[in-house]
Amino acid sequence: MDKRLQQQLDFALEIDKEKNIFRQTHLSGHGRNENDAEHAWHMAIMAYLLREYSNEAVDISKVMLMCLLHDIVEIDAGDTYAYDEEGKKTQKAREDAAKERIFSLLPEDQKEELAGLFDEFEAFETPEAKFAHAMDNLQPLLLNNSNGGSDWREHQVTAKQVYGRQSQTSLGSKRLYEVTDWLIRENMKKGNIRE
Amino acid sequence: MDKRLQQQLDFALEIDKEKNIFRQTHLSGHGRNENDAEHAWHMAIMAYLLREYSNEAVDISKVMLMCLLHDIVEIDAGDTYAYDEEGKKTQKAREDAAKERIFSLLPEDQKEELAGLFDEFEAFETPEAKFAHAMDNLQPLLLNNSNGGSDWREHQVTAKQVYGRQSQTSLGSKRLYEVTDWLIRENMKKGNIRE
Repeated sequence: MDKRLQQQLDFALEIDKEKNIFRQTHLSGHGRNENDAEHAWHMAIMAYLLREYSNEAVDISKVMLMCLLHDIVEIDAGDTYAYDEEGKKTQKAREDAAKERIFSLLPEDQKEELAGLFDEFEAFETPEAKFAHAMDNLQPLLLNNSNGGSDWREHQVTAKQVYGRQSQTSLGSKRLYEVTDWLIRENMKKGNIRE
Repeated sequence: MDKRLQQQLDFALEIDKEKNIFRQTHLSGHGRNENDAEHAWHMAIMAYLLREYSNEAVDISKVMLMCLLHDIVEIDAGDTYAYDEEGKKTQKAREDAAKERIFSLLPEDQKEELAGLFDEFEAFETPEAKFAHAMDNLQPLLLNNSNGGSDWREHQVTAKQVYGRQSQTSLGSKRLYEVTDWLIRENMKKGNIRE
């Protein structure tokens, strides 16, 4: 087998490990914890389905790819919970090292392209990155809401924390943020999110 | 919330159930059984990564979406193992009913579009469908090969059965079928696949 194809298949096998990285979010129906690969799959489909609500026109293929790849560094760096302030302090250093190792398995041109997409997502500046981030917020919100807010209750998350993260959805989609805001208020009323 | 957006979010929540549909394939590192959502995520990334090996030019965004959606009917119909001849007899009827129920959650235009993509994958005629099928074959092959062919051994699968399915990869990618053929031969030599 030629080197290029071998490198591509090595990368394909390596990313299988993302299925072992579990998040704080639980599946609907009060299911088990969700893993990163499932979360990414769900986000990519939602991005396609909801693309009409993006504030700006997006290259949806790029958004989907960003969704699929955005957590790949967690294979080495682990999942950092959205409201884990201690973990967040070391998150960038851990994720940068992981990015270098994992994407370096690829041929140089694909390493540049995919690591570039990863960086674009993280930088949160382009229309595609903003819409992908909206999916990264909305997907677990839907699951958690369907479970009566059990993830928020378990972690005793406050409204300030939830809004700190979820309000960024408005940068990608004002319409989907209206839904987000409504869902957060409903969960505050029910005591699932602390005031 | 308007009806269209409510339907889209209902569909988004419904497909979460695909994460509970487990396949016969095991994760690399002799891991647990893989589920449909993870499998679809993996296929979509591999499709993008390996698109240069498609026999024909493809709309890669369409291939990725096909990969992401191709197993959605298994939420109701369950997974039918590639070498389960009894299960295959009722597979189409089970999957047709599931397709109607699940895609009907969507607004009419999106139901038509996504069910159409699902049908296109199943029909195996367009360049996109052929390349997506190549990923559907190659992805579990890579995992199984990495585990010393344990899935084939467990099910006592024969070379004839493996080739019956895997040879279709050549319709999507002659180059990736060369790799497939080489991996199958190696596993036959080692006794992982019965002659």
